[in-house]
Amino acid sequence: MHEFEVITSKTEGKVLFAAIDNPPINLLGPGLVRDLVALIKILDKGDDYKVVVFSSANPDYFIPHVDVTRIAEYRAVAAELTGEPSLSLLFRRLSETKAITIAQIAGRVRGAGSEFVLACDMRFASREKAIFSQLEAAFGQVAGSGGVQHLTRLMGRGRAFEVLTSSEDYDAGLAERYGWINRALPDNELEPFVTALAHRIAKFPHQGLLDIKERINAVALAPADDYRHDSDLFGKATQNQETKDRYKAILDLGFQQPGNTELNLGEILGSI
Amino acid sequence: MHEFEVITSKTEGKVLFAAIDNPPINLLGPGLVRDLVALIKILDKGDDYKVVVFSSANPDYFIPHVDVTRIAEYRAVAAELTGEPSLSLLFRRLSETKAITIAQIAGRVRGAGSEFVLACDMRFASREKAIFSQLEAAFGQVAGSGGVQHLTRLMGRGRAFEVLTSSEDYDAGLAERYGWINRALPDNELEPFVTALAHRIAKFPHQGLLDIKERINAVALAPADDYRHDSDLFGKATQNQETKDRYKAILDLGFQQPGNTELNLGEILGSI
Amino acid sequence: MHEFEVITSKTEGKVLFAAIDNPPINLLGPGLVRDLVALIKILDKGDDYKVVVFSSANPDYFIPHVDVTRIAEYRAVAAELTGEPSLSLLFRRLSETKAITIAQIAGRVRGAGSEFVLACDMRFASREKAIFSQLEAAFGQVAGSGGVQHLTRLMGRGRAFEVLTSSEDYDAGLAERYGWINRALPDNELEPFVTALAHRIAKFPHQGLLDIKERINAVALAPADDYRHDSDLFGKATQNQETKDRYKAILDLGFQQPGNTELNLGEILGSI
Repeated sequence: MHEFEVITSKTEGKVLFAAIDNPPINLLGPGLVRDLVALIKILDKGDDYKVVVFSSANPDYFIPHVDVTRIAEYRAVAAELTGEPSLSLLFRRLSETKAITIAQIAGRVRGAGSEFVLACDMRFASREKAIFSQLEAAFGQVAGSGGVQHLTRLMGRGRAFEVLTSSEDYDAGLAERYGWINRALPDNELEPFVTALAHRIAKFPHQGLLDIKERINAVALAPADDYRHDSDLFGKATQNQETKDRYKAILDLGFQQPGNTELNLGEILGSI
Repeated sequence: MHEFEVITSKTEGKVLFAAIDNPPINLLGPGLVRDLVALIKILDKGDDYKVVVFSSANPDYFIPHVDVTRIAEYRAVAAELTGEPSLSLLFRRLSETKAITIAQIAGRVRGAGSEFVLACDMRFASREKAIFSQLEAAFGQVAGSGGVQHLTRLMGRGRAFEVLTSSEDYDAGLAERYGWINRALPDNELEPFVTALAHRIAKFPHQGLLDIKERINAVALAPADDYRHDSDLFGKATQNQETKDRYKAILDLGFQQPGNTELNLGEILGSI
Repeated sequence: MHEFEVITSKTEGKVLFAAIDNPPINLLGPGLVRDLVALIKILDKGDDYKVVVFSSANPDYFIPHVDVTRIAEYRAVAAELTGEPSLSLLFRRLSETKAITIAQIAGRVRGAGSEFVLACDMRFASREKAIFSQLEAAFGQVAGSGGVQHLTRLMGRGRAFEVLTSSEDYDAGLAERYGWINRALPDNELEPFVTALAHRIAKFPHQGLLDIKERINAVALAPADDYRHDSDLFGKATQNQETKDRYKAILDLGFQQPGNTELNLGEILGSI
């Protein structure tokens, strides 16, 4: 339908289905950020869509994390929408756009991948196939694109500390118990459930949905300055030698490539 | 004991048991609002009761929602206590009164019914017989009597979005997992459990309970202006043609009357 | 390793294991407060430890509550660190120190015992052996050392009301469902799990962990004035005759001594 680079889209009435398709492992880089900028501009108009469903074309990865070799590049693309070179503020803008956004999650969401689904309004995940992680602590960094803000509010201080300092992998069942996602569903029920929910919501008056969004965000969406602060801490840490060394070590083990390191990253991060 | 219109009451020591009894389906209208105004005045004195338990005399309905044909009327009654024609501020006043309030829920609580139990200090529900819904989105409206404020704080941004935009029915098990209620209990254990808890709390010194209430509310009860804002959005939407049309459609299907539409409202709202 | 009075400590790399060992029942008194003051001073330097694990040497009690006969004494000790005679502010200082703190809980944590583990960054508990309670309401008091602040944020208004007004005992399963703890684990898995988690986190760069701690606390740690307010209410209530009478009644039943009253305190508080 739309001309995206790494998103395959399909429109059904007022619902847009957007599948992330960026081989080989759906890394978040300049292409996906360009698509998100374009998509948010469409949604901001408030005309074409009431609901957006994000999914992945890759069964193993939803978004595994950012492409760590292209941070400056994708940040510059994000600035086209937000005026500031920050993934953090781009995600926050997604949380404010004029559609209800639903993440339908199978495969791995780690780091900024988790933060992307947290920026969506709801999250449903495959009980068998979804894996969640905030991996930044292993590199000496803060989850800088909304992860701290959302997870602390969703799961409370104790569980946020665990998730954010352990860099561990969490399956969908535990993610549900912790409030990371709305619900874990059996894999074969996930897509039908989300599709039905999206179409149901899309039947309701648009202005009411936007009023609800504005009022929930007034309670639960952190101020932009808190996003900026987290993002700055993340950026600053990239200059630390210990952080650089740890990225080099994991890249040498196959980080950012298909294979065992990305599949079992939680375990491997505990050994570097 | 007391002379209420649609509440049957019973006093045991410092505990008041208040059963809503407004046939045929316990709609929230001027009668129940008058009773709540009278009851809050009694509780505000802080002399007679330490704990109040709200239940329903109707096994199918606790409070299904407001009487949509009498909104101006019950709002005027609420203003007798709050000085403003708003159910929202009446419920907030209930959350501040000088007794611990417990909702013992069997049957349907939808819309303002859900917001009434959310205004109580605790909620226990029949696992088999309680049904929860915020139905406002289906009519292009915001949950204007505290629903947005309480649910976003209780269940977090993602689950609040789901509940508030889907207008779906939720059973007690899912309501418990989402934090909508304290606990779902087997139907035959519900009343004994709540009765014992109420009497236990009523043994404890009153001033301590009020101190605890004041300190929890300082953290978790939203400011009155946020209630006003939500209430105004709800009221404003009642003037929209699309909202009027959708109310007319559902009234034509038996809304506000005993029968299939009220029993299975979640499903039916998805089809209008 | 260190010279503590009632804490037995062991160092493994950057992890400190601190077992509370204050026979007969691990009451929180001047000894433990002196140890906490000394420990926080060590941790504040940010040199020796990245992670601290608190456990108990007593299988029945982690910390059952404060020694109610020595409140003025331990408060004075706390003032050495905080400048104010308040357990509340001491616990808040623990929540801000330069290490990640984990409570590994078996046995009873009631009153300030619960508030101590709430001041830690994470809480894992034995499914079979941990028992949780905020017992203050039974004495006409507010949980004055962070209990109201943490529990209301962790479990929401409704469950916080239940826990804080009922003075009831909660097992680890229910504590997990309510968000009081991160997770309940089978007793034989608890120590290995926490030990592995502590060592995992201790591999990660220290500054990143401190950044994460600062950012989570910015969202979830209540202001010092709110701790002061709760603490003042607790202190003021100790002067009430009804509170004094209830303490006398429970002391006559064996409170603060090994035996049935301390083991089954939740039940007994419902009968005085």
